[in-house]
Amino acid sequence: MILELVDILIQPGKQAEFDQAIQHGIQTYIAPSKGFIGYRINKCIETPERYVLMNYWETLENHTVDFRGSPAFTQWRGVVGPFFARPPIVEHFTIFATKNA
Amino acid sequence: MILELVDILIQPGKQAEFDQAIQHGIQTYIAPSKGFIGYRINKCIETPERYVLMNYWETLENHTVDFRGSPAFTQWRGVVGPFFARPPIVEHFTIFATKNA
Repeated sequence: MILELVDILIQPGKQAEFDQAIQHGIQTYIAPSKGFIGYRINKCIETPERYVLMNYWETLENHTVDFRGSPAFTQWRGVVGPFFARPPIVEHFTIFATKNA
Repeated sequence: MILELVDILIQPGKQAEFDQAIQHGIQTYIAPSKGFIGYRINKCIETPERYVLMNYWETLENHTVDFRGSPAFTQWRGVVGPFFARPPIVEHFTIFATKNA
């Protein structure tokens, strides 16, 4: 299992609209993708325009090749992209250790 | 439940030592703290010096007041701090939506 960590900064005052858009976008365009396991959307307390999206995939290539190479990727960006204050910062992680989380 | 997200960059080539230190530090100094729920340590694929630590707390104050105001915070930093390439970036989050993660 691979974690895709997406660090998002949106335009000020757009939180309520973005809350809807990101959920709609994930459910419609990401969740049906090959190898997608699940997600978590986190809203920052100190920086209200910051969201951290955690997407879990079976393999790295399920995200970088299968999803990013599909029309769904463009559609997803069409839904959430208009809210971004800068391009999202995306890197992938292996889960090294976990307890009750 | 509150997520404390810790973005860590360590010195190159120190991964094996840090893998041990961070687990020891969490289990010894953070896990016994009031309101601590659990953790996940993630190791970055693209940037091998990057670690993202997710700590889950009952309340924000359990981290910012109870833990940071305790001797355990200084002890924790004593274990992991020597590996840091720069101060860790820490912010807190509410969990807005989650599915299979």
